[in-house]
Amino acid sequence: MSNKVEAKTLPGMMELLPNEQVLFNKMMDTIRKVYEQYGFLPLDTPVVELSDVLLAKAGGETEKQIYRFTKGDNDLSLRFDLTVPLAKYVAINYNNLAFPFRRYQLGKVYRGERPQKGRYREFYQCDIDIIGDGELNIINDAELPKIIYTIFKELDIGDFTIYINNRKILNGLFEDLGLVEEAPEVMRIIDKLDKIGLENVILTLKDLNISEEKINSIVDFINITGSNNEKLDKLNKLGINNEIFNEGLNELTQVVKYMRLFELPENNFEINLKIARGLDYYTGTVYETFLNEYRNIGSICSGGRYDNLAEYYTKQKLPGVGISIGFTRLFYQLNELGIIKENKKSVSDVLVMSMDENIDKCIEVANELRSQEINAQVYFDNKKIKAKIKYAERLNIKYIIIIGEEERQTNILTLKNIETGQQEKVTIEEISKRIK
Amino acid sequence: MSNKVEAKTLPGMMELLPNEQVLFNKMMDTIRKVYEQYGFLPLDTPVVELSDVLLAKAGGETEKQIYRFTKGDNDLSLRFDLTVPLAKYVAINYNNLAFPFRRYQLGKVYRGERPQKGRYREFYQCDIDIIGDGELNIINDAELPKIIYTIFKELDIGDFTIYINNRKILNGLFEDLGLVEEAPEVMRIIDKLDKIGLENVILTLKDLNISEEKINSIVDFINITGSNNEKLDKLNKLGINNEIFNEGLNELTQVVKYMRLFELPENNFEINLKIARGLDYYTGTVYETFLNEYRNIGSICSGGRYDNLAEYYTKQKLPGVGISIGFTRLFYQLNELGIIKENKKSVSDVLVMSMDENIDKCIEVANELRSQEINAQVYFDNKKIKAKIKYAERLNIKYIIIIGEEERQTNILTLKNIETGQQEKVTIEEISKRIK
Repeated sequence: MSNKVEAKTLPGMMELLPNEQVLFNKMMDTIRKVYEQYGFLPLDTPVVELSDVLLAKAGGETEKQIYRFTKGDNDLSLRFDLTVPLAKYVAINYNNLAFPFRRYQLGKVYRGERPQKGRYREFYQCDIDIIGDGELNIINDAELPKIIYTIFKELDIGDFTIYINNRKILNGLFEDLGLVEEAPEVMRIIDKLDKIGLENVILTLKDLNISEEKINSIVDFINITGSNNEKLDKLNKLGINNEIFNEGLNELTQVVKYMRLFELPENNFEINLKIARGLDYYTGTVYETFLNEYRNIGSICSGGRYDNLAEYYTKQKLPGVGISIGFTRLFYQLNELGIIKENKKSVSDVLVMSMDENIDKCIEVANELRSQEINAQVYFDNKKIKAKIKYAERLNIKYIIIIGEEERQTNILTLKNIETGQQEKVTIEEISKRIK
Repeated sequence: MSNKVEAKTLPGMMELLPNEQVLFNKMMDTIRKVYEQYGFLPLDTPVVELSDVLLAKAGGETEKQIYRFTKGDNDLSLRFDLTVPLAKYVAINYNNLAFPFRRYQLGKVYRGERPQKGRYREFYQCDIDIIGDGELNIINDAELPKIIYTIFKELDIGDFTIYINNRKILNGLFEDLGLVEEAPEVMRIIDKLDKIGLENVILTLKDLNISEEKINSIVDFINITGSNNEKLDKLNKLGINNEIFNEGLNELTQVVKYMRLFELPENNFEINLKIARGLDYYTGTVYETFLNEYRNIGSICSGGRYDNLAEYYTKQKLPGVGISIGFTRLFYQLNELGIIKENKKSVSDVLVMSMDENIDKCIEVANELRSQEINAQVYFDNKKIKAKIKYAERLNIKYIIIIGEEERQTNILTLKNIETGQQEKVTIEEISKRIK
């Protein structure tokens, strides 16, 4: 072989070194574990779908970013999220599913973006959705924030706040003010409040030819601050007599009540009336989650309630509520910020090595440790002991067992903790206790 | 919405119902757990690769079956196995890896085959490989069969036999006989022995103009039967004085010795001198694994030793040994045969439901159970108790907790085992013990 091809990976694809991958998987395992704790069922849909099915609803940016191609007679695309495949799946399997259908899916999705720092063309989404048949209990909307809380608490990546709102409150407000058309623009202006200040918000609203009376109502709305209970109280006292608004307020009140029953700590959630979540997809409850100390990385888990999951495929009305964690980007961000550098742990609990070229006893010891659910690797090669220890260090393996003539005779082994440097002579029974 | 798109999945893609998916994942988890028990590190390479990198070596069937497309300036392909991406990865990261590099990867691969029963266009491969830097200890070749054994033992899918051979024995034999060119054809004929009988094998070999003396040697070789030790003994006594043959025989002898040290039961492996594994890729040890009662489904785990993993990308000599389980196809086969139908288990350990519309206590109980690592789901809707129980049955949930006015007052809950029908009044502490 003389002509070599340059080995490289397409830019925008995350490809980690083993020690980072161990950590990545550990965090994904935590997400999966919590999803299962709450009874979500796994789903695994294909990465490749028929284009007309996948793009039934899409348009604009999504369509431009899609990886689309033909193979034989088939017009195919790589999925760009996990929601459209879920809609397809539920439409196909409607008669075989038990509703409410709670599913989780951790899977790769594809968007042909220009590659840039922290942006990925292939990335994991970790989604849960609860789909009702015709209707869906509002208590589900309160359970999801508890799940978000449990995950980020276990991932241990710092303090965070789950923001919650209900789209109907905003929609009702604007309907009440007769500003339905202006609503998106008004929301954009409100969103700049922290940057430009209240006076400039008012000036900009005036530029839209909104009456002073209406602007006063908007300002009253913006000025709703305080604890979650105070906010609900102030919303009640706004005196808005609009059906949609009241429905939204009632839902939000219920959701807050149940979040507390789910034992979601008051510190970790906050009603935030400005959250609308761009997409016109959401129709009720909406969520965003921010790390308190790193708000600039954006929401790390978002979602909400939608009226109809699969309207492009089926006549069945399938309301749902769901959340999504864009894990690949989150992992990149956390790694960049140095938040997760510390809790590295290897796959192997222990590396078993020989002082000499006789490794028979090493194999025997590893057999025994594995039968006790300990991950044990044997170093087979006859290298210098220093090289063997260096190998354990590079793999982040915490313990090594060193076996020489004496250990073979006495059956008392040398166990070394590489982190502390501590070394002791112990029996294999003690070793397995020590490691566990 | 009036115009609906027909929801469908591309033929040749496996898309399971939730209860099957639970089982699928459970089996994949077992494979992963065993791979980690032996210290293999996880790897996750992209599904989409640059075509010139992915196809550096490919040709023929592979190239025809590839999903290939362009996006912007990039000529891209979906990976068709996990070995080429590993070669690319090791070539790129050579300086950052500790050798021997032991990696596992469970991932989807793509082949644009004609869809037919049991054939998939998207399927999981579950691979491990051990890559050496310049050289790789033969003991590794003995560890892999132990790993195969552990996996299929834990998957509990019936008796199986791991067949092992060494390509050098065959290569050396044919070199010794001066039949290097005829070797592939001779192997094909030998392979038909069981079907056509020894006499016809001899006649067919004569048709190839092979001398009687050489045919006698081939027959001596074919006639090697008996226990593993007897086969090694007979190979030694063939009197073949060929360097490659002796190297292969020496390696096979070593591998058998170490397989025993790894405590691989004698019943579960067998030297099978006819195994060549078509690909010219393998250069030493080769493996195949068969279910004793279902030999017709073919090898369920195969692999072997190769001289040079990444010769298309790098000058580094990287010998390796690996195995692969084509899990999607295996799962389909086992399911068809009814072998795995029985051990169904849901994600949720328990479904908590109310006798009436008050579900507050249900949420409280579920909070408590989850804090004890029990997967608990609450049924929120105010349906008839029969409908709630039916829901648990459809999801294969084994236990339900029923809470009514009495339970709320006394804190003594009703626990029902759906499988046995047994129902008892117990405290929440007892429930968590019972379920665990």
